[in-house]
Amino acid sequence: MNVIRVSDPADPRLADYTRLRDVNLRRHLEAEHGLFMAEGDKVIRRAATAGYVPRSFLLTERRAEALDDVVAATEAPLYVVSEETAERLVGFDLHRGALAAYHRKPLPSLDEVLEGARAIVVLEDLVDHTNVGAIFRSAAGLGVDAVILAPRCADPLYRRSVKVSMGSVFTLPYTRLDDWYGGLDTLSEAGFDLMALTPGEGSLPLAEAMGRLAPDAKVGLLLGTEGDGLSARWLERATSRVHIPMADRDVDSLNVTAAAAVACYELARFGAVSGRVHGV
Amino acid sequence: MNVIRVSDPADPRLADYTRLRDVNLRRHLEAEHGLFMAEGDKVIRRAATAGYVPRSFLLTERRAEALDDVVAATEAPLYVVSEETAERLVGFDLHRGALAAYHRKPLPSLDEVLEGARAIVVLEDLVDHTNVGAIFRSAAGLGVDAVILAPRCADPLYRRSVKVSMGSVFTLPYTRLDDWYGGLDTLSEAGFDLMALTPGEGSLPLAEAMGRLAPDAKVGLLLGTEGDGLSARWLERATSRVHIPMADRDVDSLNVTAAAAVACYELARFGAVSGRVHGV
Repeated sequence: MNVIRVSDPADPRLADYTRLRDVNLRRHLEAEHGLFMAEGDKVIRRAATAGYVPRSFLLTERRAEALDDVVAATEAPLYVVSEETAERLVGFDLHRGALAAYHRKPLPSLDEVLEGARAIVVLEDLVDHTNVGAIFRSAAGLGVDAVILAPRCADPLYRRSVKVSMGSVFTLPYTRLDDWYGGLDTLSEAGFDLMALTPGEGSLPLAEAMGRLAPDAKVGLLLGTEGDGLSARWLERATSRVHIPMADRDVDSLNVTAAAAVACYELARFGAVSGRVHGV
Repeated sequence: MNVIRVSDPADPRLADYTRLRDVNLRRHLEAEHGLFMAEGDKVIRRAATAGYVPRSFLLTERRAEALDDVVAATEAPLYVVSEETAERLVGFDLHRGALAAYHRKPLPSLDEVLEGARAIVVLEDLVDHTNVGAIFRSAAGLGVDAVILAPRCADPLYRRSVKVSMGSVFTLPYTRLDDWYGGLDTLSEAGFDLMALTPGEGSLPLAEAMGRLAPDAKVGLLLGTEGDGLSARWLERATSRVHIPMADRDVDSLNVTAAAAVACYELARFGAVSGRVHGV
């Protein structure tokens, strides 16, 4: 094992871990260097199991041995720092935490991701990393095959997304559309019924729409941005519009994480996913 | 209307709006002064409609007239500040935003909240304000009657909860248990079947558990903290344990917001809520 004690938070070997709460800085730095951060023992182990290649690990002295098995299996250095150095470096109290910087992999092609898929979730321009991570977790847990992202959708490998997804961003296949405007047509041509989730008028209750699906239908569930929902373009190119029925006139829709979970649950209940979900 | 232009961010009249991103400071300040913050035109209008009494409003010069109708209906002052003053005061770019400080109301008694309720959501020690807000929105939207909070559950009137709930924290009745240890027994004695949502062994699939409910059952859905779920004590005092079936062995549960939405949706689908939800 390559264990290196570092005391200076400005040491260039620690540059991957700089100011983890500074979203703009991190977006730039991670894109430029093709890296992402995994946080917490469980998530780091899942990144390792999923075959991601580590650049380095960062632990505080008190927990220096917490990832020995993972570290020993790689060539990547383990940097051990004091709690004070960690806090000055990353911008918060690492305390019982663990961090690892991983190399990104090239995204698979759309064809690869759609191959054999029965149910996919398609995210338009979501901005909130927590929502993206939680939706991956729901989709993976409920047997959906893949996630497709619009060009501007928030990054599933951003630290917060990874954490909230509990690492399911590593195992659930996903890729990004090159073309927002024509992207849905590509999915339609691949045989997907595109259900746009929207509280707007003229949409069918979710369960009714599911009941109308052919038994061998391939379904794409379209979810829009947190504020305004799906764009007019995507609504227009969808096969159908569906909504989750609401009881309260003051609440016209659920938050996108909640809506995605309900819709994935309904996909599972109607047998429209590949995964076997017993008891729905 | 009482419109006051203020240029000094340290002006004591603006003290309610200090450092809105400093969670520890805000918790202390809001508890001490019995206030809460509403953010955004829509949420402020909902607080007004729900009968909350404002302490003051804060707008930037460019949007000084955005809430004229709301402000005109009260005695509370409207403070108008430059964007720079706003940013130095609240700690972020207010830009197109609007803020209002409201007086809290005393929480209703448990008896008042349970009176006539058929379905309630009971939150143990959730720590994340976003989750609390999103769960209120799902519960209100899907026809649940009320939310009951354990003594240490995060505050529904914290700015972030209010915002994510889209103001449903103002309309959905809620209160807080005084006693964590014995709290569930009080709910059982009030006639509620307490369903603990947990991925643990020995729990029933959600839909199977719902199918076993008596037609006139009163249901309390128990949700636990983000990391560890429900406490052993609450699991032990629940009437039954239920889980959302999962397809993926790597994902044993959904995030609590997602799980709450699915469970409330199932309550609505099985007709166990008071609200009328057509088409589930």
